[in-house]
Amino acid sequence: METYSDTSHDFLYQQVAERFEHLIEQGILNAGDKLLSVRSLSKEQGISISTAFQAYSQLEMKGLIEARPKSGYYVRFTPRELPKMPSSEQVYQDPNDVSVNEMISMIYNNLTDEHVIHFSLATPDVELIPKAKLNKSFTEALRSTSHGCLSYENIPGNLLLRKQIAKLSFNWGGVFKEDDIVTTQGCMEALVFCLKSVTQPGDTIAIDQPAYFGIFNVMNSLGLKVLEIPHDPVSGLNLSYLQKAINRHKIKACLFVTNFNNPTGISMPDEQKKKLVEMLAEKEIPLIEDDIYGELFFGKNRPLTCKSFDKKGLVLYCSSISKSLAPGYRVGWVIPGRYKQDIIRQKFMHTISSATPTQTAVGLFMERGRFELHLRNIRRALHTQCLRYIQAITEYFPENIKMSRPQGGYVLWIELDKKVNAFDLYQRAIRQQISIAPGQIFSTNGGYSNYIRLSFGMKYTEEIRKSLKTLGQLIRKMQTE
Amino acid sequence: METYSDTSHDFLYQQVAERFEHLIEQGILNAGDKLLSVRSLSKEQGISISTAFQAYSQLEMKGLIEARPKSGYYVRFTPRELPKMPSSEQVYQDPNDVSVNEMISMIYNNLTDEHVIHFSLATPDVELIPKAKLNKSFTEALRSTSHGCLSYENIPGNLLLRKQIAKLSFNWGGVFKEDDIVTTQGCMEALVFCLKSVTQPGDTIAIDQPAYFGIFNVMNSLGLKVLEIPHDPVSGLNLSYLQKAINRHKIKACLFVTNFNNPTGISMPDEQKKKLVEMLAEKEIPLIEDDIYGELFFGKNRPLTCKSFDKKGLVLYCSSISKSLAPGYRVGWVIPGRYKQDIIRQKFMHTISSATPTQTAVGLFMERGRFELHLRNIRRALHTQCLRYIQAITEYFPENIKMSRPQGGYVLWIELDKKVNAFDLYQRAIRQQISIAPGQIFSTNGGYSNYIRLSFGMKYTEEIRKSLKTLGQLIRKMQTE
Repeated sequence: METYSDTSHDFLYQQVAERFEHLIEQGILNAGDKLLSVRSLSKEQGISISTAFQAYSQLEMKGLIEARPKSGYYVRFTPRELPKMPSSEQVYQDPNDVSVNEMISMIYNNLTDEHVIHFSLATPDVELIPKAKLNKSFTEALRSTSHGCLSYENIPGNLLLRKQIAKLSFNWGGVFKEDDIVTTQGCMEALVFCLKSVTQPGDTIAIDQPAYFGIFNVMNSLGLKVLEIPHDPVSGLNLSYLQKAINRHKIKACLFVTNFNNPTGISMPDEQKKKLVEMLAEKEIPLIEDDIYGELFFGKNRPLTCKSFDKKGLVLYCSSISKSLAPGYRVGWVIPGRYKQDIIRQKFMHTISSATPTQTAVGLFMERGRFELHLRNIRRALHTQCLRYIQAITEYFPENIKMSRPQGGYVLWIELDKKVNAFDLYQRAIRQQISIAPGQIFSTNGGYSNYIRLSFGMKYTEEIRKSLKTLGQLIRKMQTE
Repeated sequence: METYSDTSHDFLYQQVAERFEHLIEQGILNAGDKLLSVRSLSKEQGISISTAFQAYSQLEMKGLIEARPKSGYYVRFTPRELPKMPSSEQVYQDPNDVSVNEMISMIYNNLTDEHVIHFSLATPDVELIPKAKLNKSFTEALRSTSHGCLSYENIPGNLLLRKQIAKLSFNWGGVFKEDDIVTTQGCMEALVFCLKSVTQPGDTIAIDQPAYFGIFNVMNSLGLKVLEIPHDPVSGLNLSYLQKAINRHKIKACLFVTNFNNPTGISMPDEQKKKLVEMLAEKEIPLIEDDIYGELFFGKNRPLTCKSFDKKGLVLYCSSISKSLAPGYRVGWVIPGRYKQDIIRQKFMHTISSATPTQTAVGLFMERGRFELHLRNIRRALHTQCLRYIQAITEYFPENIKMSRPQGGYVLWIELDKKVNAFDLYQRAIRQQISIAPGQIFSTNGGYSNYIRLSFGMKYTEEIRKSLKTLGQLIRKMQTE
């Protein structure tokens, strides 16, 4: 368990650790290199023994170095050994007998089965959440409010929570007031309301390729047509492809995950966000921006959002606490720009208002500064887990796989040998109580059949290590069949 | 505050009080009649002084008798003096400049404004809810579950809660297991999912006339056509009208509030429910049954449901705790019969799963037997409030009004003089911080413009008495303008 830091500035030991991390990343230090002893490091850098020890501990926790008994510290891991990045082409295999919908049902029907290792779930490990502090806010919410959270909330949402969300948006350059925000039952409901507000059945919507599978169901249910815009593992969304599509087809709206995309882990560069907003503004095309992973960055700064470049109120910004705090609370929100009244109408029609206790609890948790503190901790923890998972996969999976390099979020996007059908792999893995998300569910056209998405949301343990090893063995076996 | 009784059987004092109530209702005892003294009653009936006193206290609380200082008990109230029942015809006045949607927005935009007397809200007074006990269950839910209510719930809903809902359905003859039930975010979401499961845009749905206004928005948003089936204040839904409609039009589904209808307060007689289910089964037409008020009966027994006569799985039964416990929790459910898989698909698509903490808390509250206990108390309290409100309205409103006689639920349906436009009345009343629901919002065709719906959910206090008096004055004034 990491201790909570009181400031947003890094401690000295973190600065030292980061310098080492940089040297390892650059290949200046290589796997197997012996490091200075703690005592020598202390002397050389003019830092205390304890600071030097803490710096090495942090690097060890991230799996970058290792302590060998009676010998000292050694570089363990160099990113240059990593698998290649996945390609942006898709592989079309024979269609599966099982439809994408049936696959999704099979994979996600048992969300709460505790015997299964859920690599398929992009959600935080319960151990990463400050449960006691959150419960304290919850109890406070139940006791302190005059109505005991029994009564209907305001239709746009709990006022305290909306104020805190407005405050949170400062981090990505948003300047909003509580009145600009409407809360929802998770990000999913926010996306549904946005789509219903800006489209009619029969309309065409541009989305990412690959994309989060949940969105296909929504599109289908709303009678919308989907146009998939490829995004590249390195350069992000293919804007010129999109521009051509806009010129050729009648695109009614766009829906993109702009930061730490699911499943690819890619963020649109901020400059590209600006271009995208300008391109769509010219044609008055609304953009639904799904920024559910935006707060979970591993670098120094929070990536911006498309909403921060929105001058015409055409961007409908959606997010939630499901990835950062508690998926079970179902607390999400939308900053809908010029579509606010439509969103409020949708919400009133569908559910009257969102649940009072969960909204109040999260509002209080944020107001007390606990959410910001928690975000700092979970970012660090996820970064460490990400590196640990990458290491294990590099060790246990065949050498010819390709793998994404997430700079935030929850998921690794892995391209397997063309011979390996990911849904077959899922079926073999689930027999061993391991659940993965096969690539097929991330596209409407049967592509990505040799890709898998693995979540690193669960704390890295011996059990996780073994499960990744088992997965690697299954893949190796399928490659040679 | 009433004390909680431990058994479902009435106490002796209640039995005595009920006999008096009966005599008053039958007109055998009349307003102004002097009653036996407590001592004489005790002697005559062979009951203790304390029991006799309790019986009179209960009648006094219900507003049926009054104690006059140094004189004794007198009959205060005889139902024969009540206003007539509303007629089933509609009055068509000049259309309002304001659309029904705009009216609804105006009336319900400030759900949480504490300065307004919300006669427009059919929800329980916070004082009627055992807040401390409910909070106890909530805290238990947060602390005792392994995941602290942080994680996603099972898609069909919290298992403990579904078990308790199955148990609750025994009361109306339902024999269900947890697997037959899907939880939702309130009854409203249940209705939306049901409609989406059994209809396509363009289909025609038969509903009550008048009907809960929320449903028109839903129908409109789903592209459905509405066929309004009149129901009579005395005999209930007009089945022969419905039969003719079925023969003539293609009715894709029906949606009726079967018990303590909103706004009329009428319950379908159980025999009529059976007939309705058989009539629809013959044509394989699904029936969406909204039983949100069913538990709030004033009589001896819970009314049955259409679902209890459903042999073919064609009835989709919907309910929630919003009227009986906590609207702000957004906990509802559906027993969807043969449409279960469709409902689960809708739910997964829209919200993945419903909030964990609220579901778990309500499940625990029910499991501990606290919900049944609470229902017994709230039924009694609502019955008393209903009688008190009726008395005050009879006293303060003009003599030519007509008023429903609810046997359960929350609302009085009042027909005013034809000269009084209910939306005008709303606008005058809201200036005095009094909110009512004008009849216009309960139909699609501008009818019921001289009707109002008044909720008796708020505890009867001096403030309520004054507000009803003010309303009465406003109506009198409008009649003579």
